[in-house]
Amino acid sequence: MRELILIGIGTGNPDHLTGAGIKAMQDADRILIPRKGRDKADLADLRRQICDRVLTAPGPEIVEFDLPVRDASGDYRAGVDDWHDAIALAWAKAAGSAGRVALLIWGDPSLYDSSLRIAARLSPAPQIRVIPGITSLQALTAAHAIPVNEIGAPFVVTTGRQLRDNGWPVGVDTAAFMLDGQCSFQTLPGDDYDIWWGAFLGMPEEVLIHGRLSEVADQIVETRAEARAAHGWIMDIYLLRRRPA
Amino acid sequence: MRELILIGIGTGNPDHLTGAGIKAMQDADRILIPRKGRDKADLADLRRQICDRVLTAPGPEIVEFDLPVRDASGDYRAGVDDWHDAIALAWAKAAGSAGRVALLIWGDPSLYDSSLRIAARLSPAPQIRVIPGITSLQALTAAHAIPVNEIGAPFVVTTGRQLRDNGWPVGVDTAAFMLDGQCSFQTLPGDDYDIWWGAFLGMPEEVLIHGRLSEVADQIVETRAEARAAHGWIMDIYLLRRRPA
Repeated sequence: MRELILIGIGTGNPDHLTGAGIKAMQDADRILIPRKGRDKADLADLRRQICDRVLTAPGPEIVEFDLPVRDASGDYRAGVDDWHDAIALAWAKAAGSAGRVALLIWGDPSLYDSSLRIAARLSPAPQIRVIPGITSLQALTAAHAIPVNEIGAPFVVTTGRQLRDNGWPVGVDTAAFMLDGQCSFQTLPGDDYDIWWGAFLGMPEEVLIHGRLSEVADQIVETRAEARAAHGWIMDIYLLRRRPA
Repeated sequence: MRELILIGIGTGNPDHLTGAGIKAMQDADRILIPRKGRDKADLADLRRQICDRVLTAPGPEIVEFDLPVRDASGDYRAGVDDWHDAIALAWAKAAGSAGRVALLIWGDPSLYDSSLRIAARLSPAPQIRVIPGITSLQALTAAHAIPVNEIGAPFVVTTGRQLRDNGWPVGVDTAAFMLDGQCSFQTLPGDDYDIWWGAFLGMPEEVLIHGRLSEVADQIVETRAEARAAHGWIMDIYLLRRRPA
C-alpha cells in the first residue's frame, strides 16, 4: 500500500459525496469495505450503493473484509489499542498488492473518527490523503436551517460522556454533542436550554426534534428508543444553546 | 421568492461541491451572485466558474448584483443591522419574479456566515433550505491529515477576537480559530502549543504551515502578509493544540 485515501462520504445520503470524493474513489486501485457481521450499523450496504452509483468502468476493485471485534473484557484503553492494531492489519491484508487504497469514512475522517490513528499504525507507512466529507453536525444544522454559532461567539463540539462527567462546557452558550447513547442532555436543567436533535440525518429515515429542552427531552428519549428498535441501530447528534437569562 | 436555497460550496475548490449542491443549483430558477466592486475577495469569478462547470441547459438564470457596502462610521451593531437589511433587499430585488432562488455560500451556511440571519429578514418569508458544504476547518484538517479532536475530547471553534479578548478557551486543549486578521496566536505562550495553519485551502494557492507555535509563529505572520499582498485578499484558519505538560 503506497497511498491510503480516507474519503469522507457524509452521513448516509449519497448526495453528500463531493466531487473530490468521487474522483478519489475512481482513481483508487482498491476500495475496502468493512463488514461487522450481522450488525446493521456496519453500513456496508450504503458503501456498496455509493460505489455502484459513482464508479465507472474500469474502476477500482471493491474488496470487503471482516472488521476485527474489540475485546471488551479487560482494560478499556488497552482493548482499544489492540483493536486498532488488529484493524490496521486487516486493512493491510485486504489491500493486498494494491498501491492506492481507499476507505469510505462516515462523516469526515477528521471528526471523532479513528481512521487516521489506525492508519498511523500501518507499517511500512503509506502516504495518507484525506478528503473531507459532510459531518453529522453539518447535516443537523442544515436540516434545522440554523447557524451553529451565535454571532462572533465560540461553540464546543464534544461527547455525551463529557457532558455527564464534567457538566455544561465552561465559557460557551452553544455546544454540539456526539456519540451519546445515553441522552445525557437529561442531566441539564431543561428550562435553561433549547435543543435541536436529529437522527439518521440526510437519510430517508431522518427524524428531527426541536424545542425548549424541558418540553421535548422526553419526546427525544422515546423517539430515539423507538427508532433504534425499528432500525436495529441509530446515529444521532444534538445541539444545545443556553437561553438568555 | 417562494424558496431560498443556501448552498455551501466549500472553500474555493470546485470539487468541494456535493451532489446535493449540484442538484440544488440545477433545480433553482435563479442563482444570485454578489459583487463587491473591485474587491478580489468577492469570489464572483469562482462562483461563475462553478456555475459554468456544473450547470447544464436548460439551467437557472445567473443574476449578478452589487453587494451593499457596510456603513462603518457609527455604532458597529447598528451598522451591521442596517447592512443586513440592505443585503436582504438586494437579494429580493435580484431574485425578481423567480420562485426558487439559490445563493452559493463560501464554506457551510451554518458556520460563521450571516446568510441565515439575512434570510430571516426577507418579507414575505420564503422557505429556507440549507445544503451543507465543506468548511475551511475541514479543508485545514484534511490538508494536514490530522484529526480535529483528541480521542473523546472536546474542542472549541471560535474567532481571533475571542482569543485576544478572553485568552485560551477554558476546559479544552484544542481550538480552531476563524476570522483572525490579526494573527492573535501571538498573544499565547508559544512553547505551550502546536499550530496547524492554512490559507487558500483547497485552492491552487494553498499554503500550509505546521509546528510548535514558538518556532513557526513569525513564519506564519510573514507568509500571511506576503500571500495577502500577492493576491489582494486572504482567507486563513488555524488549529491550536496545547502540548502535554
